[in-house]
Amino acid sequence: MPSFTGVIPPLVTPLTSTGEVDLPGLGRLVEHLISAGVNGLFTLGTTGEAIFHDATKRGRVLDHVITVNNGRLPVFAGVIDAATDAVIEHAKTARSGGVDAIVATTPFYAQVDQREVADHFRAIREAVDLPLVAYDMPFCTHIKLQRGTVAQLVREGVVAGLKDSSGDIQEFRRLLLDLADHPEFFAFTGSELVVDSVLAMGAHGVVPGLGNVDPSGYVRLWNAHINGDFGAARGEQERLCRVAGISEVAIGRMGLSSALFGAIKTALWELKIIESNMVSRPLRPLNTQEAAAIRGILENEGLIGS
Amino acid sequence: MPSFTGVIPPLVTPLTSTGEVDLPGLGRLVEHLISAGVNGLFTLGTTGEAIFHDATKRGRVLDHVITVNNGRLPVFAGVIDAATDAVIEHAKTARSGGVDAIVATTPFYAQVDQREVADHFRAIREAVDLPLVAYDMPFCTHIKLQRGTVAQLVREGVVAGLKDSSGDIQEFRRLLLDLADHPEFFAFTGSELVVDSVLAMGAHGVVPGLGNVDPSGYVRLWNAHINGDFGAARGEQERLCRVAGISEVAIGRMGLSSALFGAIKTALWELKIIESNMVSRPLRPLNTQEAAAIRGILENEGLIGS
Amino acid sequence: MPSFTGVIPPLVTPLTSTGEVDLPGLGRLVEHLISAGVNGLFTLGTTGEAIFHDATKRGRVLDHVITVNNGRLPVFAGVIDAATDAVIEHAKTARSGGVDAIVATTPFYAQVDQREVADHFRAIREAVDLPLVAYDMPFCTHIKLQRGTVAQLVREGVVAGLKDSSGDIQEFRRLLLDLADHPEFFAFTGSELVVDSVLAMGAHGVVPGLGNVDPSGYVRLWNAHINGDFGAARGEQERLCRVAGISEVAIGRMGLSSALFGAIKTALWELKIIESNMVSRPLRPLNTQEAAAIRGILENEGLIGS
Amino acid sequence: MPSFTGVIPPLVTPLTSTGEVDLPGLGRLVEHLISAGVNGLFTLGTTGEAIFHDATKRGRVLDHVITVNNGRLPVFAGVIDAATDAVIEHAKTARSGGVDAIVATTPFYAQVDQREVADHFRAIREAVDLPLVAYDMPFCTHIKLQRGTVAQLVREGVVAGLKDSSGDIQEFRRLLLDLADHPEFFAFTGSELVVDSVLAMGAHGVVPGLGNVDPSGYVRLWNAHINGDFGAARGEQERLCRVAGISEVAIGRMGLSSALFGAIKTALWELKIIESNMVSRPLRPLNTQEAAAIRGILENEGLIGS
Repeated sequence: MPSFTGVIPPLVTPLTSTGEVDLPGLGRLVEHLISAGVNGLFTLGTTGEAIFHDATKRGRVLDHVITVNNGRLPVFAGVIDAATDAVIEHAKTARSGGVDAIVATTPFYAQVDQREVADHFRAIREAVDLPLVAYDMPFCTHIKLQRGTVAQLVREGVVAGLKDSSGDIQEFRRLLLDLADHPEFFAFTGSELVVDSVLAMGAHGVVPGLGNVDPSGYVRLWNAHINGDFGAARGEQERLCRVAGISEVAIGRMGLSSALFGAIKTALWELKIIESNMVSRPLRPLNTQEAAAIRGILENEGLIGS
Repeated sequence: MPSFTGVIPPLVTPLTSTGEVDLPGLGRLVEHLISAGVNGLFTLGTTGEAIFHDATKRGRVLDHVITVNNGRLPVFAGVIDAATDAVIEHAKTARSGGVDAIVATTPFYAQVDQREVADHFRAIREAVDLPLVAYDMPFCTHIKLQRGTVAQLVREGVVAGLKDSSGDIQEFRRLLLDLADHPEFFAFTGSELVVDSVLAMGAHGVVPGLGNVDPSGYVRLWNAHINGDFGAARGEQERLCRVAGISEVAIGRMGLSSALFGAIKTALWELKIIESNMVSRPLRPLNTQEAAAIRGILENEGLIGS
Repeated sequence: MPSFTGVIPPLVTPLTSTGEVDLPGLGRLVEHLISAGVNGLFTLGTTGEAIFHDATKRGRVLDHVITVNNGRLPVFAGVIDAATDAVIEHAKTARSGGVDAIVATTPFYAQVDQREVADHFRAIREAVDLPLVAYDMPFCTHIKLQRGTVAQLVREGVVAGLKDSSGDIQEFRRLLLDLADHPEFFAFTGSELVVDSVLAMGAHGVVPGLGNVDPSGYVRLWNAHINGDFGAARGEQERLCRVAGISEVAIGRMGLSSALFGAIKTALWELKIIESNMVSRPLRPLNTQEAAAIRGILENEGLIGS
Repeated sequence: MPSFTGVIPPLVTPLTSTGEVDLPGLGRLVEHLISAGVNGLFTLGTTGEAIFHDATKRGRVLDHVITVNNGRLPVFAGVIDAATDAVIEHAKTARSGGVDAIVATTPFYAQVDQREVADHFRAIREAVDLPLVAYDMPFCTHIKLQRGTVAQLVREGVVAGLKDSSGDIQEFRRLLLDLADHPEFFAFTGSELVVDSVLAMGAHGVVPGLGNVDPSGYVRLWNAHINGDFGAARGEQERLCRVAGISEVAIGRMGLSSALFGAIKTALWELKIIESNMVSRPLRPLNTQEAAAIRGILENEGLIGS
């Protein structure tokens, strides 16, 4: 059976208005998620703005999450960096910190082929004795982690699981079927608007950015799935699609990363979990008008009192 | 007048067979370039595999180049990283080391728009008082540094120069014309196979990866340009295009970065300047057969005795 | 309620070994599909190689399908062409021929924006009084038919339905939710490996290229969906995913279109429905070895006697 | 020696306000170009909106150009279409009409590989006995005509020349060098802002859309090149870059094709050569304000009295 399943939200990294890590806010976020019943915590992912944080800041985030979590849930740590050696450094730190698994993308910036991508994961696995999750994020890395590459790495015992944020559900399903004889393999989706579907086809979990804002919704969705109640899962997912409208509020005035991370942070700010909707340089924070639009969505969906 | 002009090769970072920086080889490379008459040294660029090296390794490379150079030529330091804060850290180190200018790409990994790209450069310039060269490398960053963005940043005094590796010669020319009223602005091309053309349209210099292997060729090309001898410049460039055949030797067996960096390193190894053609993980080194093909090209072009 | 629902396979256009339309084979294909219980016939789509056929050949295909169908099922006609006027000509011919709906892509070749895409559909609808299905096929047109554009066109009464072959299931679902107040709108998916999922989220039908080969499988999937038997739908879809292995047999030796259309035609040839696996110039037919591999897959899945 | 050299503008296809071909305007355009001293006429290219015109309309354009030209200049006919058979039909019509060469792109819409691209050109050449110009236009076809493919086709005697609108000047130069032993091969550039450069590296001609508006400028540029006067060529090209500002006037309010074709047509309308700035559906015409901006540019450059 897969070692990990369920709802594992990718935690945002709350920042103070001066750009420091907001540790109290991060602690409240961990409690917010755990109390909602999520199944794991994924820290330092794309949504966690890991790429914007140096080793020190990443360490601070990781340590605090581990401390607050205090063993209650499995902790996944993103070890996102452009090249193998840097990823291994992050992975060693994460291992020392006591995480349960690490999550690595393909290399980026350099123009590598799939054989080199495979070597990248092999080197990470050899250097750090922890379950390794391959993270397919071609919108950011601009390199697709191909199905055949993942299957090969699973068969070699290099990769334990996949976090698929490619949006390519057909290739994802084919991979699930290709690896049907590897019951220990686990596959999570980052496609947060079709979780009911992806679970129904055999995925083992979901890593929803929106799960920062509405973890209870994703937990209900997961439970409906476990109970085989497809209608309830669909209804919950459709409600979450409406909540996801927050990520469209600022599109056009800023880049996609700003609009997405900023929306989640603004919602958490409105929910009084974090102290600011600050994002990392050079991303842009949402403004007052955009915050009001987000508040309106949260009110409409009953996530906040109107 | 522009502060910097001429041939400024982007130095490869020689590695030992165990992946350490080959400092003696790096020193020989610096002397190889200076004795050929180049006009500046660009260290820690894409060709220098900067993205693969951590701060410590980058510092070692930079210090050694500055020490060996000993003030003979201006030194440019790449400060390549995915996000603003990390770039600023590299830039501060470079400034302490005593470089003459820093070279920064757009952010990468995150999905940012041109306004955020501009803010990125503004923040770097504000943090570090050194001439800032904007480096347009969309094949690696997957974000085009648009002409209007560069022009705006030059007019604001944020950006002093451009290193254009986009391959989009038409937009490059338009930028030169747009900034005709900014005589202090300098524009270098990384399009190493059309240097005669780009200089003839007003570019101020070239940053040729192939200049590691044949710096004298690029110096002759530059001198022909200075002397207004278009025919000689063209002849030299066409010869250099033949030398550039080395970068096609390994294509198909590895990714583009491996094939390119590996070809340059293999040539320098054949020229006995560096001790190994090792490249950074997960890139792949060229093999014996590919090295022989590269040796053949060098012999044909008289760069090595046959 | 939507006017059209269910399984509507996009018919291949069988060719003789000299490249003429194989009308007897086309007739057998229509009977093969109708006898399997499909709900409609989509002729002259991408899989029908419409882009390779001139008006005369398209007319011949359409007339024969309509004649053989003889009113048993609704007939959809692709009116695929690069620009508005040509699409309208195809649409007028299709209307004269007696089809039930027409299916048009965005323009291609020219570089148009979404406002021009919308005008394209408006002009088609105004010229031809038939239900107009917008066909999102960015892998071929290189222009995404954006969710907002489709929603706007549906609200204007221009577009009656959508055939989504973009693979972007999240945007597809959002569109279904955006248009929840338009119960007459129908949305078909071309994502033939996740049909159970897409139907479960509210899609009204499927246009599966693989449905040429195994229409009964898709009909069983559809019936399972109608009966609310998610498990049966999933099982059927997973079996169809194995059949879809035929489309991977020739990848690497030819382009994607050849590999896909050729696989379907080779399967139909092995099933003795069409007389040749010929494809249109410059596509390449599958060879004997590839045909044997496809036969093997069909045998394994029980679609052909071994 | 190459059969064709010099300035060969791609004629726009003037339209009346109701969308018919404006034959008198087309005749005046031909005279405008011939009297400026151009070296050939390229009709029915991308700029000629060929993709928007059916065979009848294309025939009307071609016949009129050939009649008005009356043998004074070589005439090139675009035979642009998505697939081989349609291209061959256009080519046969063009041959009957008496053109001197035909110009064909790669296939588009279908997803083909380079071997299939090569077969496409082979089939065209075999069907129609006319010099065949391969037209590399990846911005429209989304398939790069690779250097190796062109070189192979030239060596086979399939392709006589190249029209390169890829913008990839480095690959273009490499091709010129690769084919240095084929003196009959001719290579034209569509990169209308760097013509001085591309000619200086050995290209044989230019197909400038802007040459509709200012043919005398490109003729002067060509003559300066022939006379080896690089400074004069550069000066002329820089002036033409300023004229090219017309193509940026409408960007943002419409797609790129509309903005470009519309700018040229608006300029010709202001020059009283054509009767309307109408473009083909679904492209958008420039409005009064944009026309005024274009008039301003023409006045500034002395192409029209102020």
